[in-house]
Amino acid sequence: MHDLGPRPSRHPLPHRNAHAWRGLEVSLDVLQHEHLVALEERYSHVLVNHQLDGVLLYSGHPARHFGDDQHASFVTQGHFMHWTGLAHAAHCWLLIRPGLRPTLYFHAPDDIWHLPNTLPDEPWVNHFHVERRQEVTPPALPPGRFAVVGDVAPTMTAQWDVKINPDGLTRDLDALRVHKSAYEVACLREANQRAMLGHQAARDAFLGGACELDIQFAYLAATRQRETSLPYGNIIALNAHGGVLHYQHQAIRPEAIRRSLLVDAGYRYRGYCADITRTWPGPHANQRFAPLVEGVTALQRTLIAALAPGVSFIDLHERMHAGLADLLIEQRLVRTSAEAAVASGITRAFCPHGLGHLLGVQVHDVAGHRDEGGNLLSPPVGAPFLRLTRELQAGMVVTIEPGIYIIPMLLDAYRGNREIDWDAVGSLADHGGIRIEDNIHVTLHGPDNLTPRHE
Amino acid sequence: MHDLGPRPSRHPLPHRNAHAWRGLEVSLDVLQHEHLVALEERYSHVLVNHQLDGVLLYSGHPARHFGDDQHASFVTQGHFMHWTGLAHAAHCWLLIRPGLRPTLYFHAPDDIWHLPNTLPDEPWVNHFHVERRQEVTPPALPPGRFAVVGDVAPTMTAQWDVKINPDGLTRDLDALRVHKSAYEVACLREANQRAMLGHQAARDAFLGGACELDIQFAYLAATRQRETSLPYGNIIALNAHGGVLHYQHQAIRPEAIRRSLLVDAGYRYRGYCADITRTWPGPHANQRFAPLVEGVTALQRTLIAALAPGVSFIDLHERMHAGLADLLIEQRLVRTSAEAAVASGITRAFCPHGLGHLLGVQVHDVAGHRDEGGNLLSPPVGAPFLRLTRELQAGMVVTIEPGIYIIPMLLDAYRGNREIDWDAVGSLADHGGIRIEDNIHVTLHGPDNLTPRHE
Repeated sequence: MHDLGPRPSRHPLPHRNAHAWRGLEVSLDVLQHEHLVALEERYSHVLVNHQLDGVLLYSGHPARHFGDDQHASFVTQGHFMHWTGLAHAAHCWLLIRPGLRPTLYFHAPDDIWHLPNTLPDEPWVNHFHVERRQEVTPPALPPGRFAVVGDVAPTMTAQWDVKINPDGLTRDLDALRVHKSAYEVACLREANQRAMLGHQAARDAFLGGACELDIQFAYLAATRQRETSLPYGNIIALNAHGGVLHYQHQAIRPEAIRRSLLVDAGYRYRGYCADITRTWPGPHANQRFAPLVEGVTALQRTLIAALAPGVSFIDLHERMHAGLADLLIEQRLVRTSAEAAVASGITRAFCPHGLGHLLGVQVHDVAGHRDEGGNLLSPPVGAPFLRLTRELQAGMVVTIEPGIYIIPMLLDAYRGNREIDWDAVGSLADHGGIRIEDNIHVTLHGPDNLTPRHE
Repeated sequence: MHDLGPRPSRHPLPHRNAHAWRGLEVSLDVLQHEHLVALEERYSHVLVNHQLDGVLLYSGHPARHFGDDQHASFVTQGHFMHWTGLAHAAHCWLLIRPGLRPTLYFHAPDDIWHLPNTLPDEPWVNHFHVERRQEVTPPALPPGRFAVVGDVAPTMTAQWDVKINPDGLTRDLDALRVHKSAYEVACLREANQRAMLGHQAARDAFLGGACELDIQFAYLAATRQRETSLPYGNIIALNAHGGVLHYQHQAIRPEAIRRSLLVDAGYRYRGYCADITRTWPGPHANQRFAPLVEGVTALQRTLIAALAPGVSFIDLHERMHAGLADLLIEQRLVRTSAEAAVASGITRAFCPHGLGHLLGVQVHDVAGHRDEGGNLLSPPVGAPFLRLTRELQAGMVVTIEPGIYIIPMLLDAYRGNREIDWDAVGSLADHGGIRIEDNIHVTLHGPDNLTPRHE
């Protein structure tokens, strides 16, 4: 629980030759340095604006289960991770002051119980002033005006006159995470490369007849990560389970009839998350299913091609619905005009979730509902689950994840509606659903898809 | 996160024929009924003593990571699990009143995001009054004097005049978990059977040259469980890592030189935990290592044979140290008398942890430091980590886990001491350590080892 999690490895994955890997490392070193320099400048600006001499970022710590001596899982606070990339470093504090080197108070106790925490071999470690500490208490602060950001109990900092998580500051620090540096994009790209190895292994395990649990093991083994290192709980959904949007189980029994597999699974690299979904027709898929998967894939590529600075993500979400309507009509699940299918809510019954979200050190990254000035941008009435309501800007990294699902709870509201071909829908019921999700860097020169095409 | 975790499966594991399995199920049904009847009677007694009309047990719920929409892992509160065996049922409430059927307020919302929570096919479900609820708020309480036990914020129950987690009541409910019913023992035995399949697979993977991560995957695959379902984080420690008592990583690179493997890994069955450790010499072990493993194993069996009602666990812990001294002398790591090796602290430097602990729905079960009357029994000065300081009684289930480790931080204090053969110790340094741990039911008729012998 008190570990740093899997170390950002310097060792090549099996699929990549050592030379290419070394190139990535050198380039990441340079990019990380630039990332830090820019971050220092932007933090200075924010701190000066808030009339602060500094901010102390707390990494956080795992909570104990109630009445137990075991701990819950733990992930480092986002702003701390923004500087360090450490996803599981508990009891650490990072002091940022304008014009001064960042100071990391690194919790690394002499401990016979755990392997001592170690720092990665990355430039930021030399860039920072690092102080190793045994204590879990906050470090002493110099005189001045400071704020503390993180999961800090008021008692922890009662000895100082500091603000804890002040609203305006938190919002401004969130805003600094919206536009990704070249370093962050490189990390997100690497996370995507690794996650895709897992998706290919999951597909192969599925076609070989594996149950959900063994498909999960195939994914984890191919990506060389533990379940507890994943950025979010993988969704491994066979057949009808694909229609449960956040399907949370992993069945241990193989299915004799394999119609479909939906895998929504990620990877965390130096803090940065991949969030990829693929859907595979199985050997027993209804003949309608593969064309629908192809249709959603084609729609997803069209939507990705439209990503550009200045585009409203709400508009793009609506464009997804228009595209879904076209597809449902083309595949003869729905017989009406595309406009009518959207207006009557039919497309929402087939796809209740949003088009996508911001991505970074958190899989649903911060500030998706705030504009540049920090004002709230609530999702529209028809898209309550849309996590990104902003206009796109260069430097954002977003997911694009259209889907079509057979969700009885939603479709039941349309029973009797003759614009839906219920026989066709019924023939797909045991297939659950389809989602195709990539991670895209929005640039001035067009969309940069970080998710590799699979073999 | 909001799931019930893996369902207690009715399906046979591959190694067991269906007939034997059906026998276990029938017997568990009968035993569970008896468990509930006895629990009702004992709870009534406690509640009357505390002048309460009832207690509302809250299962708990997962916490959100700070500034994130993802959740930490979650395990159900122990007293709630004592009745239901549900290890991951969030937002549930269980109302226990003397003379009335227990009422379970079961959180099972209509939800397009998750598969609806379902109850297991076990007798308690019919024994209880079950009310399915959409809400996460506490249920309305009838008039009367009630206490609430669980991870409850005061604001959650502000509308009532109830006591939250009152000390005396909590202590008395803890005491009800110390003596295991026949049902609980059967569950612990089953958890042990399943965990042992994993230990055998881990050993085979190790001898086949696997890295720590792949040994973990072999363990999980053989036990058909996810890492997030484990009762505690498995320790999978190759070579020197075995000397880190709670070694927390899982290396992804295989080791060319394989001296030793220490695996401390469990299983949760209907809430009840197995907690087993095995140590295997590898193909490159020093010739001193296998005899030491055999010696610790023999010592462990001797200590198990001594388990009986009336035996002081502190005395038994001291007997472990006497036995470790004998073994260290016999294997020529230490040259002095056994008494001197214990008195000078040498055996504690080789084995700093306690002999064992209580085991149940929590891996370190409650009330190990309280006597029958609820009085604190602090560990002795020489054994600060001993989690069980009571006199043994029939019905307790304990772990017995002697070990010998090469922990430089501890042995360094004895450098220069000529009673230790430093060459011999040095030759074992890369082997980490040895621990052999079984789970034993203390009975009037002798110790009942729940952990099966491996093949």
